[in-house]
Amino acid sequence: MRLSQYFLPLLKETPSEAQIASHRLMLRAGMIRQTAAGIYTWLPLGFRVLQKVEQIVREEQDAAGAQELLMPTLQPAELWRESGRYEDYGEEMLRLKDRHKREMLYGPTNEELITEIFRQAVRSYRDLPKNLYHIQWKFRDEVRPRFGVMRGREFLMKDNYSFDIDKAASLVSYFRMFKAYMKTFKRMGLTPIPVRAATGPIGGDLSHEFHVQADTGESQLYFDSEIEKLDEDKLDPASPTVQDELLKWYAATDEKHDPAAFARVPEARRREARGIEVGQLFYFGTKYSAPMKATVAGPKGDTVAVEMGSYGIGVSRLVGAIIEASHDDDGIIWPESVAPFHVGLVNLRPSDKECAEAGEQLYQRLMKSGIDTLYDEREESPGAKFAAMDLVGLPWQVVVGPRGLKQGVVEVKERKTGVKQELSLDAAVARLVGLR
Amino acid sequence: MRLSQYFLPLLKETPSEAQIASHRLMLRAGMIRQTAAGIYTWLPLGFRVLQKVEQIVREEQDAAGAQELLMPTLQPAELWRESGRYEDYGEEMLRLKDRHKREMLYGPTNEELITEIFRQAVRSYRDLPKNLYHIQWKFRDEVRPRFGVMRGREFLMKDNYSFDIDKAASLVSYFRMFKAYMKTFKRMGLTPIPVRAATGPIGGDLSHEFHVQADTGESQLYFDSEIEKLDEDKLDPASPTVQDELLKWYAATDEKHDPAAFARVPEARRREARGIEVGQLFYFGTKYSAPMKATVAGPKGDTVAVEMGSYGIGVSRLVGAIIEASHDDDGIIWPESVAPFHVGLVNLRPSDKECAEAGEQLYQRLMKSGIDTLYDEREESPGAKFAAMDLVGLPWQVVVGPRGLKQGVVEVKERKTGVKQELSLDAAVARLVGLR
Repeated sequence: MRLSQYFLPLLKETPSEAQIASHRLMLRAGMIRQTAAGIYTWLPLGFRVLQKVEQIVREEQDAAGAQELLMPTLQPAELWRESGRYEDYGEEMLRLKDRHKREMLYGPTNEELITEIFRQAVRSYRDLPKNLYHIQWKFRDEVRPRFGVMRGREFLMKDNYSFDIDKAASLVSYFRMFKAYMKTFKRMGLTPIPVRAATGPIGGDLSHEFHVQADTGESQLYFDSEIEKLDEDKLDPASPTVQDELLKWYAATDEKHDPAAFARVPEARRREARGIEVGQLFYFGTKYSAPMKATVAGPKGDTVAVEMGSYGIGVSRLVGAIIEASHDDDGIIWPESVAPFHVGLVNLRPSDKECAEAGEQLYQRLMKSGIDTLYDEREESPGAKFAAMDLVGLPWQVVVGPRGLKQGVVEVKERKTGVKQELSLDAAVARLVGLR
Repeated sequence: MRLSQYFLPLLKETPSEAQIASHRLMLRAGMIRQTAAGIYTWLPLGFRVLQKVEQIVREEQDAAGAQELLMPTLQPAELWRESGRYEDYGEEMLRLKDRHKREMLYGPTNEELITEIFRQAVRSYRDLPKNLYHIQWKFRDEVRPRFGVMRGREFLMKDNYSFDIDKAASLVSYFRMFKAYMKTFKRMGLTPIPVRAATGPIGGDLSHEFHVQADTGESQLYFDSEIEKLDEDKLDPASPTVQDELLKWYAATDEKHDPAAFARVPEARRREARGIEVGQLFYFGTKYSAPMKATVAGPKGDTVAVEMGSYGIGVSRLVGAIIEASHDDDGIIWPESVAPFHVGLVNLRPSDKECAEAGEQLYQRLMKSGIDTLYDEREESPGAKFAAMDLVGLPWQVVVGPRGLKQGVVEVKERKTGVKQELSLDAAVARLVGLR
């Protein structure tokens, strides 16, 4: 993409309403614009990242055997009366009426609707297990939305729902998601901390939250630093001892914190930190299936209410969380897997014939090699161009300038380390293609 | 995907509420379920088609130089007061209030919001042209939603917006979209009829609708059959005569119909038909940019209100329109480009050892070759399996049975023509891989 044509409104000033780094950087880098309190438009650069994060979530859900569908944003109120949550949910639920005065709501989550879809379709234990997910916009009417996409009102969430014949099978589904979540977050360059958590308005007996450490996080975490080394590949969701294995390392949010147990963690490994919640798992048995009569015929011909769990990932929030975990004073530092472009190509003097030719050649060769490249061929000062590239934070920068070209070289810089290398045009292309 | 594990609730009975083929078939084939009047859940099979249709739309927008972003579903009422449409829009607009009693609405279209985003960001004619699109759920509160996803209330629409410095440039943007739309619909196996149309609540001076012929269509079309042969590759959007070239062949909806002009079309080429609208183009100049003050500095330092157009494609509606255009008494007939799977593999006797082995081998080999395959290994009667596959309508069926295997062959059937061929396992795989 040529920067002169790209819709990328960068801001020089730091917007006063932005209190945290990710919000500030997303506004300055032209990723988002606020449409209303807690409601954002994703501009082209931000949308590219959102799509990449969404795609990683999707791939790991598919790999774990979940099936994707899509529920609508609006739901009828009756469904939520069946489970008893319509009155309980409080003011965070956005209620509305259509032209025929029918009561509806903008889905904050989908336990009721998925249970309705399941009970219409499934009759026998032979059709189990099932795990259904969707990635859809949700609305929670926060009193005080803030921190940009980290605590928005309209937000993109992946939520899935498992259906099993008994508790043992349901826990296997639960820990299969645990494993998928660890993989998902690691693929985005994050180090997730899984902690035991309270179940809140979703309900149930067992819950884990996945946190990313950041000073601006909303939750207080207490954990044994060993948990950062948890290797999900060694986790067998079907093992009857999987729960105990995870209990080996202390990790909890303040709601579930047990100071006495925490004190038994060797002091050098005891960590207290703020965390951003990016995902949560719930096992809640028959909390929805029993009142909503989502039953199947069991193996002995008996009628069984299915055992359920639900599992959420904050897809739009993750974009902010990744930035919180990976930035410096100059801007964002994108992990390769979610970077909006892989290379930022900077032409220091586009009006110079040699620079123009070399820049164009590099741009064409990189694009043909499948390397997404953002080409800055604007008439701007070198300082403004360097600042823009560091702000936008693509993993690699290639700088074409008249002085280098006289020696037959361009400069290749890694955003993360700042390490620069002078390479011939051929070597620069080979290097970047090789890194892909 | 193994059918025994797939969430595919097929219906044997024709649901009484479904009046048209696409609605009936989408319910019976387990593609959608109604959540509320005019609001649907897309089950896994339907969601796969929706994603493919969306991706074709996206690719042709990108190829035409439009840039993707994502606006939220909810918008503040103030924006629509600026353009004067808040009161005008009538009851089709879903209005709501948040917990702080702020007036909001579920976007039925996005002229106001995109104009707001544009005016915040763009200052100079040098930043033009710009063409921005998004693919997002919209809501129009139809009095009487019907025909399934064809006239739903919550529906997926691609809408884009062009910004140009003057009328001539804006018309180039318009006809670039005209060309992209022709390509988009043809890639889905449709024969689009572009007709001059009224501009309705969007406003403006010039509009085309793209229709798919179907008896159940809502619009009355009058056209010269020659227009079906229109070759968009020969259309130059920048040609000053492009409008006249399109006027060569008569084509209009009843709103714009001119019986006298139609009478001049040679009788053998005169067509009257019902049409389903799947896309519409609008050129409306400064209708939004003038009241909302979306201006740029022009080349002479003057302040110019930008010239705009907007362009919509009904993405979810297209799934229904494709089925209306391509089905028979037994079920859907998917064009390859949007088929949810390419091959339906039917195992007539999964309990038979040889059948199980051959079926499994075929399934693995097809999947490894990148051929999306739906494998029916359920214990069901052959008749039920054949009926299910015809209903679901995948382009190719492969039937494995004990009798064929004795001769070393399986049966390959093309859904569209019904033509069957007996082939060895190797030849069947080679054939299907070759067709991809």
